[in-house]
Amino acid sequence: VTGDALPRTVAVLGLGLIGGSLARDLAALGVRVIGCDRDAGSTAAALREGVVQHATHDVAAAQLDDAEVIILALPVTATLEALETLAGRGTRAALITDVASTKVSVTAAATRLGLGSRFVGGHPLAGHHTSGWAASRTGLFAAARVYLCSAPGVDAGALALAHGVWRAVGGAPELIDAAEHDGRLAWISHLPQVTASLLAAAISEAGFSAGDLGPGGRDTTRLAGSAAEMWTDIAVDNAAELGCALGAVEARIAAFRAALSRGDRAAVRTAFERARAWSD
Amino acid sequence: VTGDALPRTVAVLGLGLIGGSLARDLAALGVRVIGCDRDAGSTAAALREGVVQHATHDVAAAQLDDAEVIILALPVTATLEALETLAGRGTRAALITDVASTKVSVTAAATRLGLGSRFVGGHPLAGHHTSGWAASRTGLFAAARVYLCSAPGVDAGALALAHGVWRAVGGAPELIDAAEHDGRLAWISHLPQVTASLLAAAISEAGFSAGDLGPGGRDTTRLAGSAAEMWTDIAVDNAAELGCALGAVEARIAAFRAALSRGDRAAVRTAFERARAWSD
Repeated sequence: VTGDALPRTVAVLGLGLIGGSLARDLAALGVRVIGCDRDAGSTAAALREGVVQHATHDVAAAQLDDAEVIILALPVTATLEALETLAGRGTRAALITDVASTKVSVTAAATRLGLGSRFVGGHPLAGHHTSGWAASRTGLFAAARVYLCSAPGVDAGALALAHGVWRAVGGAPELIDAAEHDGRLAWISHLPQVTASLLAAAISEAGFSAGDLGPGGRDTTRLAGSAAEMWTDIAVDNAAELGCALGAVEARIAAFRAALSRGDRAAVRTAFERARAWSD
Repeated sequence: VTGDALPRTVAVLGLGLIGGSLARDLAALGVRVIGCDRDAGSTAAALREGVVQHATHDVAAAQLDDAEVIILALPVTATLEALETLAGRGTRAALITDVASTKVSVTAAATRLGLGSRFVGGHPLAGHHTSGWAASRTGLFAAARVYLCSAPGVDAGALALAHGVWRAVGGAPELIDAAEHDGRLAWISHLPQVTASLLAAAISEAGFSAGDLGPGGRDTTRLAGSAAEMWTDIAVDNAAELGCALGAVEARIAAFRAALSRGDRAAVRTAFERARAWSD
């Protein structure tokens, strides 16, 4: 499947949807996986299913010295904390990477902490509104775009390892500047998530349940079920870019409402036509 | 499957997603179906596939005299026009019904035109972002809620026929006041549709294509592909209720943006938590 040499041992910190799925795919490829999760149920399940060989609940206590690659599969804030811990304790890993949905703050923290040469941020577009070890599965990254962001001065070996690991699990890695990544993701990922959540909150406040919706409404609000804490991290971390994108939707709703109230059929139709042309 | 007696002949005016699917299900139950659609390709296909026995392109010219039930499966504006035509030419049908997504204007028009005793408005929650005869299929209404709205003075026989036809194709009919229907649908259907369309338009304007989105963003914007003309009808026809619902989403986006710009993490988290609690 891949011409890249795989690392012998990988530590996955965080056995949720993304980390658990990575651990499953890497284990299936013969990689020895060390798992770390604060949730004892997740580590117990990962050990029982033979996905991880060693497990621990604490980044600081994790036996990471054998790991050639350390993958932080955690929310943004926890990723920043784990980088501090790794910098403090030291590590021999040739690659430290992560999967958080924002990349500016994480890449900057790695550089500031002296880990920049071995750090390559990663972000697979394989999120889902489900979460946790129970939601993890093999094949989650098949054909998924995976953004990679590194600081200037990164080791060529670390970059090659990052590409190799993602290609091995079926992803399509693509190098991108961290600021460009966060600006782009504000529109194509964070904006749809927040819009779905606020739409759901408005429908809820009006007294309707999720079961009242038809199939189209259920699609539109599906992301409202996403993990609240993880998305709080992302929204706050990417506040400026996300705020700008949200402002654009807010302005379009205001303009549409104005068209409705003045009975401007042409403006209403144009709004639907633009959306339809885009979706084709 | 059903204890209701089915009509021998049904005329379906409009062979799109809803009308075509109704015609398919009724034909499969042994009902003789007369089809009418201005699109010659749709009527030709419906005849060729043996779904309809007779077809025409014009409501005024349609051979409707044999039909015990006439189903208007048209957008709102065309439904209002078809009611005018039917009132003008006369019909012996025991039930005239429709499938439009708004019910106040249609029910009022039927009454005004002297068709109120035989008119029962219908609205199956089985819409989809695809449309036309090519999108129609058998089984579309299986377990779908179907709202029925009638004017005071409706014949008991017309009401029973409406219930019977929808139950026969697998739907779950539910009688509701027309104004209550339109208020409810503004929130559970029209609001998600318009939000998805305006979100898509904003993402498009920012320079991103539908293919740039991940699976969650694609779900959230799926409805943007819906038929523009049909939704223009619905939005304009239900402008007051829809405007109110859109205003609620607009206010939530404004409040979320304000929370982001003042770094109010608690307010951001509360918004995501409310949405998640609703979706569970």
